[in-house]
Amino acid sequence: MGAQPEQELFLYDPSLLLKLDFYRSPAKFNPPITAVAPGEPWLKVRPLKTGDYRRGFLQSLSQLTNVGEISEAQFLNRFAEMRAKGDYYVTVIEDLRSNKIIGSATLVIERKFIHSCGIRAHLEDVVVDDTYRGKQLGKLIVVTVTLLAEVLGCYKMSLECKDKLIPFYRSIGYVDEKGNSNSMTLRYANQNRL
Amino acid sequence: MGAQPEQELFLYDPSLLLKLDFYRSPAKFNPPITAVAPGEPWLKVRPLKTGDYRRGFLQSLSQLTNVGEISEAQFLNRFAEMRAKGDYYVTVIEDLRSNKIIGSATLVIERKFIHSCGIRAHLEDVVVDDTYRGKQLGKLIVVTVTLLAEVLGCYKMSLECKDKLIPFYRSIGYVDEKGNSNSMTLRYANQNRL
Ligand SMILES: CC(C)(COP(=O)(O)OP(=O)(O)OC[C@H]1O[C@@H](n2cnc3c(N)ncnc32)[C@H](O)[C@@H]1OP(=O)(O)O)[C@@H](O)C(=O)NCCC(=O)NCCS
Ligand SMILES: CC(C)(COP(=O)(O)OP(=O)(O)OC[C@H]1O[C@@H](n2cnc3c(N)ncnc32)[C@H](O)[C@@H]1OP(=O)(O)O)[C@@H](O)C(=O)NCCC(=O)NCCS
Repeated sequence: MGAQPEQELFLYDPSLLLKLDFYRSPAKFNPPITAVAPGEPWLKVRPLKTGDYRRGFLQSLSQLTNVGEISEAQFLNRFAEMRAKGDYYVTVIEDLRSNKIIGSATLVIERKFIHSCGIRAHLEDVVVDDTYRGKQLGKLIVVTVTLLAEVLGCYKMSLECKDKLIPFYRSIGYVDEKGNSNSMTLRYANQNRL
Repeated sequence: MGAQPEQELFLYDPSLLLKLDFYRSPAKFNPPITAVAPGEPWLKVRPLKTGDYRRGFLQSLSQLTNVGEISEAQFLNRFAEMRAKGDYYVTVIEDLRSNKIIGSATLVIERKFIHSCGIRAHLEDVVVDDTYRGKQLGKLIVVTVTLLAEVLGCYKMSLECKDKLIPFYRSIGYVDEKGNSNSMTLRYANQNRL
């Protein structure tokens, strides 16, 4: 009898993804797909899991931006922090044939005093592997976390994006509000971590 | 001997505000002011405190957007949540003559996998009471939380704003990066809180 395989942890409750009503989204899917039925039997939409370090999650993210060298221990530490804080909904698409993560998007909840102590959502770090692009998977993962934010009770969700992605996000219901659709960024040269 | 006055809690460690080096900011102050020396002896820049419910913090926020009816218990509950999560840096300006909050800004830290498990900052909910505007206090509170994010080790800070505030934030070092300075928003009609 070999060692028991270690139990993997989900970052958030996967049953939340069963509550999403894709008919609420203005996004058009052709053919129709949802988080539960993503179009192919080998595709799976689910929360990030501890084992995704070994399923190429960080390699997938590196198609978005610089990821750097991250050890498995560092990954698990950040995962545990996010899970303990409870407001991180990193959602991935796995190809079950290769057991590789081929796309992901992050919903982060921010707690407010305004809007009756409301909560609002940020969309962050959207990526689909280049060999899987143009198959509605980008739209699928963004609609998934957008519907999830509504189920969680957010009053709004917002994102920062490049000019060329405006049509993509418009098709999902995001609005570049006239006179109020700017994002501005300040990048720090040094990181003096406390 | 009367009852002991209840001890107030700070949302975050106020000594962090002593570490800010205002010479690092491109913002020009004339006359020069800082978080520690905000120009008048009756002005105090500090973290939000539990007692700020009674110092008009929510009335001040209502000059920014809809705040709604919030009881003291609801305020304290949200305060406790933010304090426990540890990534909320709501910073206020108090007028010590009237014991009123007259401005505030929120820095929220988001934990990432990208950038070597980096952390980044969001600037949220900036407001200065209309009777105090035009006295550099908006600039002061924004520079304060912007320098704080650097001390905390963030690799960037970003914000979403109206067109007319672009010059204001540019003067503080924020950049509307060409081709990459859009924010888009989706507002939910109903809030189906879980
Ligand atoms: C953006 C991204 C996630 C889209 O993934 P995808 O799986 O190719 O997107 P989809 O197949 O779901 O495309 C949906 C629609 O958006 C359009 N679209 C997708 N990417 C687009 C782009 N870069 N520019 C313009 N339109 C785009 C598609 O043409 C499609 O339109 P249609 O429904 O009218 O046919 C993917 O291109 C990517 O990972 N890019 C690199 C990382 C990135 O830029 N992330 C976003 C940061 S703001
Ligand atoms: C934005 C706000 C915080 C600025 O506060 P303030 O104390 O008046 O700002 P300051 O006195 O520090 O002004 C700093 C500089 O920005 C400029 N500025 C301030 N508000 C501005 C505005 N609404 N439009 C254009 N410029 C503005 C000032 O002219 C000044 O320029 P200078 O340094 O060249 O003289 C305040 O106007 C406010 O609370 N507005 C309502 C809430 C809001 O819009 N918040 C921001 C949401 S994105």
